[in-house]
Amino acid sequence: MLLKALNQLRSTRSLLYHLQSPTWTSNFDHIANKAIATAGKVFFTTTTTTSATQTSPTPSQSWGTKKQKRSVKLRAAAADFIMSNPEIEKQLAPLRERVQEQGNLVRELKAKGAPELDVKKAVAELKVRKKLLEEKELALTPSVVSFDRAKMEDLLKRRFFYDQSFAIYGGITGQYDFGPMGCALKSNILSLWRQYFALEEQMLEVDCSILTPEPVLKASGHVERFADLMVKDVKTGECFRLDHLIKQALEKLCKAKEATAELKAECEDIIIKLDGYNKQELADILSKFNIKSPLTGNDLTEPIEFNLMFATQIGPTGLVKGFLRPETAQGIFVNFKRLLEFNQGKLPFAVAQIGNSFRNEISPRSGLIRVREFTMAEIEHFCDPTQKDYPKFVNIKQEVMTLYSACNQMDGKSAQQLSIGEAVGSSLVANETLGYYMARIQQFLLAIGIKPECLRFRQHMSNEMAHYACDCWDAEILTSYGWVECVGCADRSAYDLGQHTSATGVRLVAEKRLPAPKTIEVSEIVPNKQALGKTFKKEAKTITEALAKLTLEEINQVEEQLTNNGHYNLTLTDGSAHQLEKDTIQVKRSSKTIHVEEFIPSVVEPSFGIGRIMYALLEHNFQCRDGDEQRCYFTLPPIISPLKCSILPLSNNADFQPFTQQLSSSLTKAELSHKVDDSSGSIGRRYARTDEIAIPYGITVDFDTLKTPHTVTLRDRDSMKQVRVSLEEVVGVVKDLATARVKWEDILQKYPIFEQQEATK
Amino acid sequence: MLLKALNQLRSTRSLLYHLQSPTWTSNFDHIANKAIATAGKVFFTTTTTTSATQTSPTPSQSWGTKKQKRSVKLRAAAADFIMSNPEIEKQLAPLRERVQEQGNLVRELKAKGAPELDVKKAVAELKVRKKLLEEKELALTPSVVSFDRAKMEDLLKRRFFYDQSFAIYGGITGQYDFGPMGCALKSNILSLWRQYFALEEQMLEVDCSILTPEPVLKASGHVERFADLMVKDVKTGECFRLDHLIKQALEKLCKAKEATAELKAECEDIIIKLDGYNKQELADILSKFNIKSPLTGNDLTEPIEFNLMFATQIGPTGLVKGFLRPETAQGIFVNFKRLLEFNQGKLPFAVAQIGNSFRNEISPRSGLIRVREFTMAEIEHFCDPTQKDYPKFVNIKQEVMTLYSACNQMDGKSAQQLSIGEAVGSSLVANETLGYYMARIQQFLLAIGIKPECLRFRQHMSNEMAHYACDCWDAEILTSYGWVECVGCADRSAYDLGQHTSATGVRLVAEKRLPAPKTIEVSEIVPNKQALGKTFKKEAKTITEALAKLTLEEINQVEEQLTNNGHYNLTLTDGSAHQLEKDTIQVKRSSKTIHVEEFIPSVVEPSFGIGRIMYALLEHNFQCRDGDEQRCYFTLPPIISPLKCSILPLSNNADFQPFTQQLSSSLTKAELSHKVDDSSGSIGRRYARTDEIAIPYGITVDFDTLKTPHTVTLRDRDSMKQVRVSLEEVVGVVKDLATARVKWEDILQKYPIFEQQEATK
Repeated sequence: MLLKALNQLRSTRSLLYHLQSPTWTSNFDHIANKAIATAGKVFFTTTTTTSATQTSPTPSQSWGTKKQKRSVKLRAAAADFIMSNPEIEKQLAPLRERVQEQGNLVRELKAKGAPELDVKKAVAELKVRKKLLEEKELALTPSVVSFDRAKMEDLLKRRFFYDQSFAIYGGITGQYDFGPMGCALKSNILSLWRQYFALEEQMLEVDCSILTPEPVLKASGHVERFADLMVKDVKTGECFRLDHLIKQALEKLCKAKEATAELKAECEDIIIKLDGYNKQELADILSKFNIKSPLTGNDLTEPIEFNLMFATQIGPTGLVKGFLRPETAQGIFVNFKRLLEFNQGKLPFAVAQIGNSFRNEISPRSGLIRVREFTMAEIEHFCDPTQKDYPKFVNIKQEVMTLYSACNQMDGKSAQQLSIGEAVGSSLVANETLGYYMARIQQFLLAIGIKPECLRFRQHMSNEMAHYACDCWDAEILTSYGWVECVGCADRSAYDLGQHTSATGVRLVAEKRLPAPKTIEVSEIVPNKQALGKTFKKEAKTITEALAKLTLEEINQVEEQLTNNGHYNLTLTDGSAHQLEKDTIQVKRSSKTIHVEEFIPSVVEPSFGIGRIMYALLEHNFQCRDGDEQRCYFTLPPIISPLKCSILPLSNNADFQPFTQQLSSSLTKAELSHKVDDSSGSIGRRYARTDEIAIPYGITVDFDTLKTPHTVTLRDRDSMKQVRVSLEEVVGVVKDLATARVKWEDILQKYPIFEQQEATK
Repeated sequence: MLLKALNQLRSTRSLLYHLQSPTWTSNFDHIANKAIATAGKVFFTTTTTTSATQTSPTPSQSWGTKKQKRSVKLRAAAADFIMSNPEIEKQLAPLRERVQEQGNLVRELKAKGAPELDVKKAVAELKVRKKLLEEKELALTPSVVSFDRAKMEDLLKRRFFYDQSFAIYGGITGQYDFGPMGCALKSNILSLWRQYFALEEQMLEVDCSILTPEPVLKASGHVERFADLMVKDVKTGECFRLDHLIKQALEKLCKAKEATAELKAECEDIIIKLDGYNKQELADILSKFNIKSPLTGNDLTEPIEFNLMFATQIGPTGLVKGFLRPETAQGIFVNFKRLLEFNQGKLPFAVAQIGNSFRNEISPRSGLIRVREFTMAEIEHFCDPTQKDYPKFVNIKQEVMTLYSACNQMDGKSAQQLSIGEAVGSSLVANETLGYYMARIQQFLLAIGIKPECLRFRQHMSNEMAHYACDCWDAEILTSYGWVECVGCADRSAYDLGQHTSATGVRLVAEKRLPAPKTIEVSEIVPNKQALGKTFKKEAKTITEALAKLTLEEINQVEEQLTNNGHYNLTLTDGSAHQLEKDTIQVKRSSKTIHVEEFIPSVVEPSFGIGRIMYALLEHNFQCRDGDEQRCYFTLPPIISPLKCSILPLSNNADFQPFTQQLSSSLTKAELSHKVDDSSGSIGRRYARTDEIAIPYGITVDFDTLKTPHTVTLRDRDSMKQVRVSLEEVVGVVKDLATARVKWEDILQKYPIFEQQEATK
């Protein structure tokens, strides 16, 4: 249920991020080695923005970002750097104060139940102030390393990690094909995800239909609410996403020579507040600035709500409307009864699903981050709303997390480091179940290679949170696009099951045994159908229904009136009154012993955007060799690397071939994906090629291999160090390394270092 | 590219199938144990047909087959049973002869280039005769065991292997949700598929977009040809698939009291030949029998071609038409250039893709076999058309296959048993690459638990095969629905790459180095553009183009005419003639050294329908315990079983809990999916529940477990035998069993038999 979540990237901006780094791990951060050396902590800041040129949804052959070479600077920063620098803190103090002041105003307005519009305005202003603070923090932090997104994207395209779909046909924006390396990486991430979640928690994994009939998505709210605002060129029909269009137009206005300082200030103010405006306010801005189509100069329509779901017809009649699902979660909710039964009626249990979802973005952008077709991995954890403790919470309660609470966001404070045990203990995180998943999400993200100092959990502020949710934390990852929401983790209470229950009449509920059987008094009105029918004809049914809905108190009144007056005067909702005589109805009292009670389970939902995670992962692991900007590579952890090993014969000498073949078939038997590169390039060039596709280990067959005992060299991608290992042992060593059973450091201890080949490049 | 393949089920019918069973394996066929004991071989025969009641595409809450309880008989048969029975062979002989006679006629017609319609008629008659032969063979074979499809489907629904999607909303026909057990089974099959194909052959696996823009599917032929015929009720708009409708109507006619023998014969004849009729012939049948809507009795429209792709719009303008892909293959073809480059320009290489495809069936039926949304696993093997040998062919050439050649189908003969080496050697199978994949497909299907005697490879007859294909074999699996095509394996030559090259102008070709550089003479006509333009104005361009297309011979003529007459008379394709003077054109001769030549690679395509394979697998592994028809279970091989192990504490004694927990966490660490069942049922009942979901091994914690040394019992699902194993060893034993490193028989040898608990049920 990334519904709100996926919409959120729009409003997230590069926030300064401080870290005490207690979760620092040994596989940490090769990008930032230098940064660490100087300042100990890193974060990104984008030096150009990503907007402009993206408003047109016209298919284009280039990636969203191809032609805009963006230089993104990696900077060193740290709470202690800023905090220990009184000069900087002095400059920030007034900004922090302004945020807090506005945060207090928002709280106050809410407390006194001020009109929604007033609250919204106050929140928009709060965001403006937060943004100013963040920007100042960023500006005061010295830049250290530079990350070149264009260079990374060039490598990703060149080695076909992924690329635009249907490019030979002109391509479609917002759709990507994963090539061999991207596909293997994705598949390895998903395997590990299954291990981390489905297997570890014994979840029920399901695989539901993508094509979804309309009534299901009406109940979930997607038909009505899953929309973005756009405008159309009145002549050509070209569509523009409204917020993008306004931003672009006002930025252009500001840049014009004749722009006054006043105009500039007004435009900048609007741009900052864009997310807070409603449809009418945006329409007013359009007309005030007389904004036209940026492509033709033609007039534009009024803002239109464009539903982001892809519609189609199921079956040949054209009468059954369906959509491609916008999230996988609904498939789980509609199967709740079957799943509860599979779990023998017991709660809690969790259901997982991995699959594709679709949203018809008006103008896809930012590469893999905003696309039309994407893979999600979602979990729906169903539990008793009164029992949100988690037995395994004790295992992870020491996990230290970077939590950016709603409160800190309102107060102009930074994110804080806290163990999840403390966070749940102090009720900062609503309950153990939510906290457990947050900690496991963090463990998973770090295991696949996300840098700990670029990960935070940001709590939704009450105005962002869906009205039915109790608490919601997004795992945000810092990339060159700023903080990107990659995993949502929400306590959605009973909302979804309740919606589908109302829509279908099928009670999606669970039962629990009462501590002791309970005797309850049942009062009901039993109509004499014959007598009622005779008196009221067609209206008898409406009357019977109205009687069934009476409260206990009303039933008591009925009894009283019947006894005292011999009849009861019933008033229907339409205002009509009916006199019911004594012989037409009867009040019946009985007692009933009940052993169980029904309830709608609560849902805790971690929802992973796999494409976004992959993109962040690639950024965090992109590296160039010291002194050779052209030799780029990815430091992906072996466990998720697309291929685990390369086999490189030193030359095309025929004597090497049997060894190459034997190694290849042994690696296959050990289920280790690998690549034989027997092309004619120098060994150094071939290593560079395998580095580019993140192969962590390389086996070289050389002339010494021919001698007995047969040996080969084994090279580590990240350190470029090599050891000499016997032919029999090497596959086992690679297996242990690739499954994280041993570390390269252990191998260095055990086997003799080898220092020759790489020099021959 | 199941395009043709997926359409084919329609025409496949239960064929008698003989087997010498050289591929008989030890994990063989629990269904048929009895059958084997008597006759040695088994096959299914459906005693009721699947048609009727399925023509309406209206959503229905029941499975396609739920209410039609079908009793399907499992029979014992064998080539030797029939062949060794001269009485039976005597009865079949005339039928065999009639097939052969017609087969010869078809060959003859083709040889002399008879009109297409005549060939088509002859083929239709051939199919009729084949069907009569098959039915007779079936009728003469004694029935042995009965398989109850309704019972299996009940179990599949009850334990939520899969069930109709969105059932609480009334459901949609042809869409299924896989519950925990179905999803795990599917996911295990796909993992093994990756190992068998992608890893073993070092294929490039890709993951391409589902939403496909129209031009791509125009080029592939899907927009024009991927259609079924239907008719509509003129008043209600209700749609019916034409062939289903006619069949249903004629069957009803036959059953009517007043039906004459003549009418019956005519109807039966039409029903048999249905697949062979074209649109006009079907329209004639509609009108001849005055067929109306079976639901309303209203008139019907003329037959309409209904395209089976789901259409949608990409982007907000409504101008970019797209479809949900009907197969995954096109995503591979359009990425050919990138993939070739990834493979450093070298051929052969193979690309694999697993993903969902969609077809908007007019009336889905037969459960998982004909659905609207399905998972495919496709391979495109690209190779030099002149080099279709396969280096690893030698590894599998002994694999014995059941091959049902086009020739045998035409001659009224049965399928034959042959090693793939012999089949390729004798050119029955076109080449080593095709043969290699066929053998690997067989190995894979047997490994997941398809019964060898229910698997055959049927060659497409030339009239079934797409015009561009050289050879095509379908892996067909015998189920209670008859022989179902589950994997297509086709040599598609250069068709697909050629189509996309023509459509885009992007040359999807490979290069190969010539054995030696070649000097070629280049003759061309160089036009004097200025002079030509002056003389011919607008037509100059057409003339220039026509000149560029001249053959060497024609160029020689041009030179001759210019020399002799001073001009050349060019005739254009539209018939117009133009006299080109000496000064307007010039013949240029030069020589050029070339080192490489370009060619369009051939494609060999194995294409797996995962849902169909799963369904067949479930049927082949469905069993009931001797003497207890209510205790049903699945004998799925451990390697693909949804869960590998159960943990059952003997009772809810609190002392068992630490052992249960320890086992569960050890199994998780060993990556073994498992289920703890600590509910209160007797151990026997709980075993029965785990049997239903195919859990192959069960660990029971009992009072002896509490004693030191701690031990548990380990139970085998299929034999129900138990052994006593130490607590430390048991997880390792299960791991070895689940990954097929050891067999249960080995375990029986090694550990003491345990004989107590199951009796307590």
